[in-house]
Amino acid sequence: MRVEIWSDIACPWCYVGKARFEKALAAFPHQDAVEVIHRSFELDPNRPKGDTAAVIPMLAQKYGMTEDQAKDAERRLGDNAAAEGLAYRTEGRDHGNTFDMHRLLHFAKEKGGQDAQDRLIGAFYRANFAEERSVFDDDERLIALAADAGLDADAARAVLADPDAYAEAVRADEREAAELGATGVPFFVLDRKFGVSGAQPAEVFTQALEQAWGARSPLTVLAEGAADTTDGDACGPDGCAVPGA
Amino acid sequence: MRVEIWSDIACPWCYVGKARFEKALAAFPHQDAVEVIHRSFELDPNRPKGDTAAVIPMLAQKYGMTEDQAKDAERRLGDNAAAEGLAYRTEGRDHGNTFDMHRLLHFAKEKGGQDAQDRLIGAFYRANFAEERSVFDDDERLIALAADAGLDADAARAVLADPDAYAEAVRADEREAAELGATGVPFFVLDRKFGVSGAQPAEVFTQALEQAWGARSPLTVLAEGAADTTDGDACGPDGCAVPGA
Repeated sequence: MRVEIWSDIACPWCYVGKARFEKALAAFPHQDAVEVIHRSFELDPNRPKGDTAAVIPMLAQKYGMTEDQAKDAERRLGDNAAAEGLAYRTEGRDHGNTFDMHRLLHFAKEKGGQDAQDRLIGAFYRANFAEERSVFDDDERLIALAADAGLDADAARAVLADPDAYAEAVRADEREAAELGATGVPFFVLDRKFGVSGAQPAEVFTQALEQAWGARSPLTVLAEGAADTTDGDACGPDGCAVPGA
Repeated sequence: MRVEIWSDIACPWCYVGKARFEKALAAFPHQDAVEVIHRSFELDPNRPKGDTAAVIPMLAQKYGMTEDQAKDAERRLGDNAAAEGLAYRTEGRDHGNTFDMHRLLHFAKEKGGQDAQDRLIGAFYRANFAEERSVFDDDERLIALAADAGLDADAARAVLADPDAYAEAVRADEREAAELGATGVPFFVLDRKFGVSGAQPAEVFTQALEQAWGARSPLTVLAEGAADTTDGDACGPDGCAVPGA
Protein backbone atom coordinates (compact mmCIF):
# COMPACT_ATOMS: atom_id res chain seq x y z
CA MET A 1 0.00 0.00 0.00
CA ARG A 2 1.32 3.41 -0.87
CA VAL A 3 0.67 6.69 0.89
CA GLU A 4 1.81 9.83 -0.88
CA ILE A 5 1.95 13.01 1.18
CA TRP A 6 2.02 16.33 -0.63
CA SER A 7 3.37 19.05 1.61
CA ASP A 8 5.50 22.14 1.88
CA ILE A 9 8.26 22.79 4.39
CA ALA A 10 6.78 26.23 5.07
CA CYS A 11 3.40 24.72 6.02
CA PRO A 12 2.92 24.34 9.77
CA TRP A 13 -0.09 22.06 9.33
CA CYS A 14 2.09 19.75 7.24
CA TYR A 15 4.52 19.50 10.16
CA VAL A 16 1.65 18.73 12.55
CA GLY A 17 -0.22 16.53 10.07
CA LYS A 18 2.84 14.36 9.42
CA ALA A 19 3.07 13.60 13.15
CA ARG A 20 -0.64 12.80 13.35
CA PHE A 21 -0.42 10.51 10.34
CA GLU A 22 2.64 8.79 11.82
CA LYS A 23 0.79 8.20 15.07
CA ALA A 24 -1.92 6.41 13.11
CA LEU A 25 0.63 4.50 11.03
CA ALA A 26 2.59 3.36 14.10
CA ALA A 27 -0.57 1.69 15.42
CA PHE A 28 -1.64 0.27 12.04
CA PRO A 29 -1.26 -3.53 12.01
CA HIS A 30 -0.05 -3.56 8.39
CA GLN A 31 2.43 -0.72 8.81
CA ASP A 32 5.27 -2.76 7.29
CA ALA A 33 3.33 -3.00 4.04
CA VAL A 34 2.86 0.76 3.81
CA GLU A 35 5.24 2.76 1.66
CA VAL A 36 5.28 6.51 2.40
CA ILE A 37 6.42 8.94 -0.28
CA HIS A 38 6.76 12.67 0.20
CA ARG A 39 5.70 14.81 -2.71
CA SER A 40 6.37 18.45 -3.43
CA PHE A 41 3.87 21.24 -3.16
CA GLU A 42 5.11 24.82 -2.91
CA LEU A 43 2.55 27.07 -1.26
CA ASP A 44 4.17 30.06 -2.90
CA PRO A 45 5.94 28.84 -6.05
CA ASN A 46 6.35 32.36 -7.40
CA ARG A 47 8.23 33.62 -4.36
CA PRO A 48 11.77 34.17 -5.59
CA LYS A 49 14.72 32.54 -3.91
CA GLY A 50 16.18 35.13 -1.52
CA ASP A 51 12.82 36.70 -0.76
CA THR A 52 12.78 35.69 2.89
CA ALA A 53 10.84 37.57 5.53
CA ALA A 54 9.73 37.27 9.13
CA VAL A 55 6.57 35.25 9.71
CA ILE A 56 4.81 37.35 12.39
CA PRO A 57 4.55 40.62 10.39
CA MET A 58 3.52 38.60 7.30
CA LEU A 59 0.72 36.93 9.25
CA ALA A 60 -0.40 40.27 10.72
CA GLN A 61 -0.58 41.82 7.29
CA LYS A 62 -2.15 38.83 5.57
CA TYR A 63 -4.93 38.33 8.09
CA GLY A 64 -5.40 41.95 9.14
CA MET A 65 -4.25 41.21 12.68
CA THR A 66 -2.08 43.13 15.08
CA GLU A 67 1.33 41.57 15.62
CA ASP A 68 0.20 40.48 19.08
CA GLN A 69 -2.74 38.66 17.57
CA ALA A 70 -0.42 37.02 15.06
CA LYS A 71 1.82 35.91 17.92
CA ASP A 72 -1.23 34.45 19.67
CA ALA A 73 -2.14 32.53 16.52
CA GLU A 74 1.40 31.19 16.31
CA ARG A 75 1.25 30.18 19.99
CA ARG A 76 -1.95 28.23 19.34
CA LEU A 77 -0.23 26.54 16.41
CA GLY A 78 2.61 25.80 18.81
CA ASP A 79 0.07 24.19 21.17
CA ASN A 80 -1.14 21.95 18.32
CA ALA A 81 2.47 21.02 17.61
CA ALA A 82 3.24 20.39 21.27
CA ALA A 83 0.22 18.09 21.51
CA GLU A 84 2.02 15.89 18.95
CA GLY A 85 5.30 16.13 20.80
CA LEU A 86 6.78 18.61 18.32
CA ALA A 87 8.88 21.63 19.21
CA TYR A 88 7.60 24.88 17.67
CA ARG A 89 9.28 28.26 17.88
CA THR A 90 6.38 30.71 18.01
CA GLU A 91 8.43 33.87 17.47
CA GLY A 92 11.28 34.76 15.17
CA ARG A 93 10.58 32.28 12.39
CA ASP A 94 10.97 33.36 8.79
CA HIS A 95 9.59 32.05 5.52
CA GLY A 96 10.85 32.01 1.96
CA ASN A 97 11.29 29.96 -1.16
CA THR A 98 11.25 26.19 -0.57
CA PHE A 99 12.10 24.94 -4.06
CA ASP A 100 15.66 23.92 -3.15
CA MET A 101 14.43 21.90 -0.19
CA HIS A 102 11.97 20.08 -2.43
CA ARG A 103 14.79 19.37 -4.89
CA LEU A 104 16.85 17.91 -2.06
CA LEU A 105 13.93 15.74 -0.96
CA HIS A 106 13.85 14.19 -4.42
CA PHE A 107 17.61 13.77 -4.31
CA ALA A 108 17.23 12.06 -0.92
CA LYS A 109 14.67 9.62 -2.28
CA GLU A 110 16.85 8.90 -5.27
CA LYS A 111 20.01 8.31 -3.25
CA GLY A 112 18.72 6.85 -0.04
CA GLY A 113 15.19 5.72 -0.71
CA GLN A 114 12.10 6.64 1.22
CA ASP A 115 13.74 6.38 4.62
CA ALA A 116 16.31 9.02 3.75
CA GLN A 117 13.60 11.20 2.27
CA ASP A 118 11.51 10.86 5.41
CA ARG A 119 14.48 11.67 7.64
CA LEU A 120 15.28 14.73 5.54
CA ILE A 121 11.78 16.18 5.50
CA GLY A 122 11.62 15.64 9.25
CA ALA A 123 14.91 17.50 9.60
CA PHE A 124 13.68 20.36 7.40
CA TYR A 125 10.49 20.70 9.44
CA ARG A 126 12.36 20.70 12.75
CA ALA A 127 14.89 23.19 11.43
CA ASN A 128 12.20 25.49 10.09
CA PHE A 129 9.73 25.31 12.93
CA ALA A 130 11.83 24.59 15.99
CA GLU A 131 15.31 25.98 15.48
CA GLU A 132 16.65 29.50 15.43
CA ARG A 133 18.92 29.35 12.39
CA SER A 134 16.99 29.92 9.17
CA VAL A 135 16.66 27.20 6.58
CA PHE A 136 16.18 29.79 3.85
CA ASP A 137 18.94 31.14 1.60
CA ASP A 138 21.55 29.13 3.43
CA ASP A 139 22.88 26.29 1.30
CA GLU A 140 25.34 25.17 3.96
CA ARG A 141 22.47 24.75 6.40
CA LEU A 142 20.59 22.53 3.94
CA ILE A 143 23.74 20.54 3.17
CA ALA A 144 24.34 19.95 6.89
CA LEU A 145 20.76 18.77 7.34
CA ALA A 146 21.12 16.44 4.36
CA ALA A 147 24.35 15.05 5.81
CA ASP A 148 22.63 14.53 9.18
CA ALA A 149 19.96 12.58 7.30
CA GLY A 150 22.68 10.26 6.03
CA LEU A 151 23.20 11.77 2.59
CA ASP A 152 26.48 12.67 0.97
CA ALA A 153 27.25 16.34 1.66
CA ASP A 154 29.20 16.92 -1.56
CA ALA A 155 26.43 15.40 -3.62
CA ALA A 156 23.85 17.58 -1.85
CA ARG A 157 26.06 20.61 -2.56
CA ALA A 158 26.18 19.65 -6.23
CA VAL A 159 22.38 19.44 -6.33
CA LEU A 160 22.05 22.92 -4.86
CA ALA A 161 24.64 24.28 -7.28
CA ASP A 162 22.69 23.01 -10.29
CA PRO A 163 19.28 24.71 -10.41
CA ASP A 164 17.97 22.09 -12.85
CA ALA A 165 18.75 19.13 -10.61
CA TYR A 166 15.49 17.49 -9.58
CA ALA A 167 13.59 20.60 -10.66
CA GLU A 168 11.48 18.61 -13.09
CA ALA A 169 10.64 16.09 -10.36
CA VAL A 170 9.34 18.89 -8.12
CA ARG A 171 7.22 20.31 -10.91
CA ALA A 172 5.88 16.89 -11.86
CA ASP A 173 4.71 16.41 -8.27
CA GLU A 174 3.01 19.78 -8.37
CA ARG A 175 1.25 18.99 -11.62
CA GLU A 176 0.04 15.72 -10.16
CA ALA A 177 -1.29 17.47 -7.08
CA ALA A 178 -3.35 19.74 -9.32
CA GLU A 179 -4.60 16.76 -11.33
CA LEU A 180 -5.67 15.03 -8.14
CA GLY A 181 -7.56 18.10 -7.03
CA ALA A 182 -5.29 19.18 -4.18
CA THR A 183 -5.56 22.91 -3.53
CA GLY A 184 -3.78 22.92 -0.21
CA VAL A 185 -1.52 20.81 1.96
CA PRO A 186 -0.97 18.49 3.68
CA PHE A 187 -2.72 16.24 1.19
CA PHE A 188 -2.56 12.49 1.70
CA VAL A 189 -3.30 10.05 -1.12
CA LEU A 190 -3.69 6.36 -0.35
CA ASP A 191 -3.11 3.98 -3.25
CA ARG A 192 -4.32 6.72 -5.59
CA LYS A 193 -7.84 5.82 -4.47
CA PHE A 194 -8.47 7.80 -1.32
CA GLY A 195 -7.60 11.34 -0.38
CA VAL A 196 -7.32 12.97 3.03
CA SER A 197 -6.83 16.69 3.08
CA GLY A 198 -5.48 18.63 6.03
CA ALA A 199 -3.90 17.83 9.37
CA GLN A 200 -6.72 15.57 10.44
CA PRO A 201 -6.77 13.89 13.85
CA ALA A 202 -4.88 10.58 13.99
CA GLU A 203 -8.18 8.69 14.13
CA VAL A 204 -9.10 9.96 10.67
CA PHE A 205 -5.81 8.65 9.31
CA THR A 206 -6.43 5.33 11.04
CA GLN A 207 -9.81 5.06 9.34
CA ALA A 208 -8.29 6.03 5.99
CA LEU A 209 -5.53 3.41 6.33
CA GLU A 210 -8.11 0.77 7.20
CA GLN A 211 -10.37 1.73 4.32
CA ALA A 212 -7.52 1.74 1.81
CA TRP A 213 -6.25 -1.58 3.17
CA GLY A 214 -9.67 -3.13 2.67
CA ALA A 215 -9.86 -1.74 -0.85
CA ARG A 216 -6.50 -3.14 -1.95
CA SER A 217 -6.97 -5.06 -5.11
CA PRO A 218 -4.60 -6.99 -7.28
CA LEU A 219 -4.22 -5.83 -10.85
CA THR A 220 -6.89 -7.01 -13.24
CA VAL A 221 -4.78 -8.73 -15.84
CA LEU A 222 -6.42 -8.04 -19.18
CA ALA A 223 -3.99 -10.03 -21.25
CA GLU A 224 -1.48 -12.54 -20.08
CA GLY A 225 1.81 -12.91 -21.88
CA ALA A 226 4.30 -15.67 -21.50
CA ALA A 227 7.79 -16.67 -22.42
CA ASP A 228 6.46 -19.85 -24.02
CA THR A 229 3.51 -18.82 -26.19
CA THR A 230 3.32 -17.12 -29.50
CA ASP A 231 0.65 -14.63 -28.44
CA GLY A 232 1.61 -11.90 -26.06
CA ASP A 233 5.21 -12.90 -26.31
CA ALA A 234 7.39 -12.06 -23.38
CA CYS A 235 10.79 -12.58 -21.85
CA GLY A 236 11.33 -13.90 -18.35
CA PRO A 237 14.31 -14.87 -16.22
CA ASP A 238 14.46 -18.20 -18.06
CA GLY A 239 14.36 -16.78 -21.55
CA CYS A 240 12.15 -15.33 -24.23
CA ALA A 241 9.27 -16.68 -26.24
CA VAL A 242 10.78 -18.17 -29.37
CA PRO A 243 8.63 -17.32 -32.38
CA GLY A 244 7.47 -20.40 -34.22
CA ALA A 245 8.25 -20.99 -37.84
CA MET B 1 -4.05 8.27 -16.91
CA ARG B 2 -0.75 6.62 -16.26
CA VAL B 3 0.80 3.69 -18.10
CA GLU B 4 3.88 2.16 -16.56
CA ILE B 5 5.92 -0.17 -18.73
CA TRP B 6 8.32 -2.56 -17.06
CA SER B 7 10.93 -3.77 -19.52
CA ASP B 8 14.55 -4.66 -20.09
CA ILE B 9 16.80 -3.39 -22.85
CA ALA B 10 17.93 -6.95 -23.54
CA CYS B 11 14.33 -8.10 -24.14
CA PRO B 12 13.38 -8.24 -27.82
CA TRP B 13 9.67 -8.53 -27.02
CA CYS B 14 9.94 -5.30 -25.04
CA TYR B 15 11.31 -3.59 -28.15
CA VAL B 16 8.45 -4.99 -30.24
CA GLY B 17 5.82 -4.51 -27.52
CA LYS B 18 6.73 -0.84 -27.08
CA ALA B 19 6.04 -0.24 -30.77
CA ARG B 20 2.73 -2.11 -30.63
CA PHE B 21 1.67 -0.16 -27.56
CA GLU B 22 2.66 3.10 -29.23
CA LYS B 23 0.61 2.22 -32.28
CA ALA B 24 -2.43 1.82 -30.03
CA LEU B 25 -1.60 5.00 -28.12
CA ALA B 26 -1.20 7.05 -31.30
CA ALA B 27 -4.77 6.17 -32.26
CA PHE B 28 -6.19 6.61 -28.76
CA PRO B 29 -8.42 9.70 -28.63
CA HIS B 30 -7.23 10.67 -25.12
CA GLN B 31 -3.55 10.16 -25.85
CA ASP B 32 -2.64 13.61 -24.51
CA ALA B 33 -3.94 12.60 -21.11
CA VAL B 34 -1.78 9.49 -20.98
CA GLU B 35 1.51 9.63 -19.13
CA VAL B 36 3.97 6.86 -20.00
CA ILE B 37 6.64 5.88 -17.52
CA HIS B 38 9.33 3.29 -18.18
CA ARG B 39 10.23 1.09 -15.25
CA SER B 40 13.21 -1.15 -14.74
CA PHE B 41 13.21 -4.93 -14.91
CA GLU B 42 16.47 -6.78 -15.39
CA LEU B 43 15.91 -10.21 -16.90
CA ASP B 44 19.24 -11.33 -15.52
CA PRO B 45 20.03 -9.15 -12.50
CA ASN B 46 22.79 -11.45 -11.28
CA ARG B 47 24.74 -11.25 -14.52
CA PRO B 48 27.87 -9.26 -13.63
CA LYS B 49 28.83 -6.15 -15.51
CA GLY B 50 31.39 -7.16 -18.10
CA ASP B 51 29.88 -10.61 -18.63
CA THR B 52 28.87 -9.98 -22.23
CA ALA B 53 28.41 -12.75 -24.76
CA ALA B 54 27.07 -13.37 -28.24
CA VAL B 55 23.33 -13.98 -28.48
CA ILE B 56 23.18 -16.80 -31.04
CA PRO B 57 25.35 -19.35 -29.17
CA MET B 58 23.54 -18.43 -25.96
CA LEU B 59 20.16 -19.11 -27.59
CA ALA B 60 21.41 -22.38 -29.06
CA GLN B 61 22.62 -23.57 -25.69
CA LYS B 62 19.62 -22.32 -23.74
CA TYR B 63 17.00 -23.88 -25.99
CA GLY B 64 18.96 -26.93 -27.13
CA MET B 65 19.00 -25.71 -30.74
CA THR B 66 21.65 -25.77 -33.37
CA GLU B 67 23.12 -22.37 -34.14
CA ASP B 68 21.25 -22.40 -37.44
CA GLN B 69 17.99 -22.94 -35.61
CA ALA B 70 18.86 -20.09 -33.24
CA LYS B 71 19.52 -17.86 -36.26
CA ASP B 72 16.14 -18.84 -37.66
CA ALA B 73 14.47 -17.93 -34.37
CA GLU B 74 16.23 -14.58 -34.43
CA ARG B 75 15.12 -14.02 -38.04
CA ARG B 76 11.51 -14.69 -37.05
CA LEU B 77 11.93 -12.19 -34.21
CA GLY B 78 13.31 -9.80 -36.81
CA ASP B 79 10.14 -10.36 -38.88
CA ASN B 80 8.02 -9.42 -35.88
CA ALA B 81 10.14 -6.30 -35.42
CA ALA B 82 9.97 -5.45 -39.12
CA ALA B 83 6.18 -5.71 -39.01
CA GLU B 84 6.29 -2.82 -36.53
CA GLY B 85 8.72 -0.85 -38.67
CA LEU B 86 11.67 -1.67 -36.44
CA ALA B 87 15.15 -2.56 -37.60
CA TYR B 88 16.50 -5.78 -36.10
CA ARG B 89 19.97 -7.22 -36.55
CA THR B 90 19.45 -10.95 -36.54
CA GLU B 91 23.10 -11.93 -36.29
CA GLY B 92 26.00 -10.64 -34.27
CA ARG B 93 24.10 -9.17 -31.35
CA ASP B 94 25.43 -9.61 -27.85
CA HIS B 95 23.83 -9.46 -24.45
CA GLY B 96 25.05 -8.50 -21.01
CA ASN B 97 24.31 -6.58 -17.86
CA THR B 98 21.73 -3.79 -18.29
CA PHE B 99 21.83 -2.20 -14.84
CA ASP B 100 23.72 0.90 -16.01
CA MET B 101 21.20 1.50 -18.79
CA HIS B 102 18.37 1.29 -16.28
CA ARG B 103 20.21 3.77 -14.04
CA LEU B 104 20.53 6.14 -16.98
CA LEU B 105 16.81 5.79 -17.75
CA HIS B 106 16.02 7.01 -14.23
CA PHE B 107 18.54 9.81 -14.67
CA ALA B 108 16.80 10.74 -17.93
CA LYS B 109 13.41 10.91 -16.25
CA GLU B 110 14.82 12.98 -13.44
CA LYS B 111 16.60 15.45 -15.71
CA GLY B 112 14.37 15.60 -18.74
CA GLY B 113 11.07 14.11 -17.71
CA GLN B 114 9.21 11.32 -19.42
CA ASP B 115 9.96 12.50 -22.93
CA ALA B 116 13.69 12.27 -22.39
CA GLN B 117 13.26 8.87 -20.77
CA ASP B 118 11.20 7.67 -23.69
CA ARG B 119 13.75 8.95 -26.21
CA LEU B 120 16.56 7.26 -24.31
CA ILE B 121 14.93 3.85 -24.01
CA GLY B 122 14.10 4.06 -27.71
CA ALA B 123 17.76 4.84 -28.41
CA PHE B 124 18.93 1.94 -26.23
CA TYR B 125 16.62 -0.49 -28.00
CA ARG B 126 17.71 0.65 -31.45
CA ALA B 127 21.36 0.52 -30.44
CA ASN B 128 21.02 -2.95 -28.96
CA PHE B 129 18.82 -4.55 -31.58
CA ALA B 130 19.62 -2.69 -34.77
CA GLU B 131 23.17 -1.39 -34.64
CA GLU B 132 26.49 -3.14 -34.81
CA ARG B 133 28.34 -1.43 -31.99
CA SER B 134 27.58 -3.06 -28.64
CA VAL B 135 25.78 -1.16 -25.92
CA PHE B 136 27.38 -3.34 -23.25
CA ASP B 137 30.52 -2.45 -21.30
CA ASP B 138 30.95 0.73 -23.27
CA ASP B 139 30.26 3.79 -21.17
CA GLU B 140 31.11 6.18 -24.00
CA ARG B 141 28.48 4.51 -26.16
CA LEU B 142 25.82 5.01 -23.47
CA ILE B 143 26.91 8.61 -22.90
CA ALA B 144 26.63 9.33 -26.62
CA LEU B 145 23.14 7.83 -26.72
CA ALA B 146 22.14 9.91 -23.69
CA ALA B 147 23.48 13.04 -25.36
CA ASP B 148 21.56 12.19 -28.54
CA ALA B 149 18.43 11.93 -26.39
CA GLY B 150 19.04 15.52 -25.24
CA LEU B 151 20.74 14.83 -21.93
CA ASP B 152 23.93 16.37 -20.64
CA ALA B 153 26.87 14.13 -21.53
CA ASP B 154 28.98 15.08 -18.52
CA ALA B 155 26.09 14.44 -16.16
CA ALA B 156 25.47 11.06 -17.78
CA ARG B 157 29.18 10.27 -17.39
CA ALA B 158 28.97 11.17 -13.70
CA VAL B 159 26.02 8.81 -13.27
CA LEU B 160 27.95 5.95 -14.84
CA ALA B 161 31.00 6.73 -12.71
CA ASP B 162 28.98 6.47 -9.50
CA PRO B 163 27.58 2.93 -9.15
CA ASP B 164 25.11 4.10 -6.49
CA ALA B 165 23.52 6.77 -8.69
CA TYR B 166 19.90 5.80 -9.36
CA ALA B 167 20.67 2.23 -8.25
CA GLU B 168 18.01 2.40 -5.56
CA ALA B 169 15.45 3.63 -8.13
CA VAL B 170 16.14 0.61 -10.35
CA ARG B 171 15.76 -1.76 -7.43
CA ALA B 172 12.59 -0.08 -6.25
CA ASP B 173 11.07 -0.60 -9.71
CA GLU B 174 12.05 -4.25 -9.59
CA ARG B 175 10.52 -4.72 -6.15
CA GLU B 176 7.31 -3.12 -7.39
CA ALA B 177 7.21 -5.42 -10.39
CA ALA B 178 7.40 -8.41 -8.08
CA GLU B 179 4.68 -6.96 -5.85
CA LEU B 180 2.45 -6.47 -8.88
CA GLY B 181 2.99 -10.05 -9.92
CA ALA B 182 5.11 -9.44 -13.00
CA THR B 183 7.33 -12.41 -13.76
CA GLY B 184 8.34 -11.35 -17.24
CA VAL B 185 8.44 -8.35 -19.51
CA PRO B 186 7.17 -6.28 -21.18
CA PHE B 187 4.60 -5.69 -18.46
CA PHE B 188 2.17 -2.80 -18.84
CA VAL B 189 0.26 -1.39 -15.88
CA LEU B 190 -2.56 1.09 -16.47
CA ASP B 191 -3.43 3.34 -13.55
CA ARG B 192 -2.31 0.55 -11.22
CA LYS B 193 -5.61 -1.14 -11.99
CA PHE B 194 -5.05 -3.14 -15.15
CA GLY B 195 -2.15 -5.22 -16.28
CA VAL B 196 -1.15 -6.36 -19.76
CA SER B 197 1.65 -8.83 -20.00
CA GLY B 198 3.68 -9.46 -23.12
CA ALA B 199 4.03 -7.91 -26.55
CA GLN B 200 0.32 -8.14 -27.31
CA PRO B 201 -1.14 -7.01 -30.63
CA ALA B 202 -1.94 -3.29 -30.80
CA GLU B 203 -5.67 -4.08 -30.58
CA VAL B 204 -5.18 -5.54 -27.10
CA PHE B 205 -3.49 -2.32 -25.99
CA THR B 206 -6.32 -0.32 -27.54
CA GLN B 207 -8.85 -2.30 -25.52
CA ALA B 208 -6.77 -1.92 -22.36
CA LEU B 209 -6.49 1.86 -22.85
CA GLU B 210 -10.24 2.10 -23.38
CA GLN B 211 -11.03 -0.02 -20.37
CA ALA B 212 -8.67 1.92 -18.12
CA TRP B 213 -10.04 5.21 -19.45
CA GLY B 214 -13.56 4.11 -18.59
CA ALA B 215 -12.47 3.06 -15.12
CA ARG B 216 -10.79 6.36 -14.28
CA SER B 217 -12.10 7.60 -11.02
CA PRO B 218 -11.39 10.69 -9.04
CA LEU B 219 -10.02 10.20 -5.56
CA THR B 220 -12.57 9.40 -2.92
CA VAL B 221 -11.91 12.19 -0.47
CA LEU B 222 -12.38 10.70 2.98
CA ALA B 223 -11.72 13.89 4.91
CA GLU B 224 -11.64 17.39 3.57
CA GLY B 225 -9.25 19.93 5.06
CA ALA B 226 -9.26 23.63 4.54
CA ALA B 227 -7.25 26.72 5.16
CA ASP B 228 -10.19 28.26 6.97
CA THR B 229 -11.51 25.61 9.34
CA THR B 230 -10.21 24.34 12.63
CA ASP B 231 -10.66 20.67 11.79
CA GLY B 232 -8.39 19.17 9.21
CA ASP B 233 -6.36 22.34 9.15
CA ALA B 234 -4.43 23.02 6.01
CA CYS B 235 -2.39 25.63 4.20
CA GLY B 236 -3.16 26.83 0.69
CA PRO B 237 -1.77 29.45 -1.64
CA ASP B 238 -3.72 32.11 0.26
CA GLY B 239 -2.54 31.12 3.69
CA CYS B 240 -3.00 28.68 6.52
CA ALA B 241 -5.86 27.84 8.84
CA VAL B 242 -5.44 30.08 11.86
CA PRO B 243 -6.20 28.13 15.00
CA GLY B 244 -8.99 29.70 17.05
CA ALA B 245 -8.44 30.79 20.63
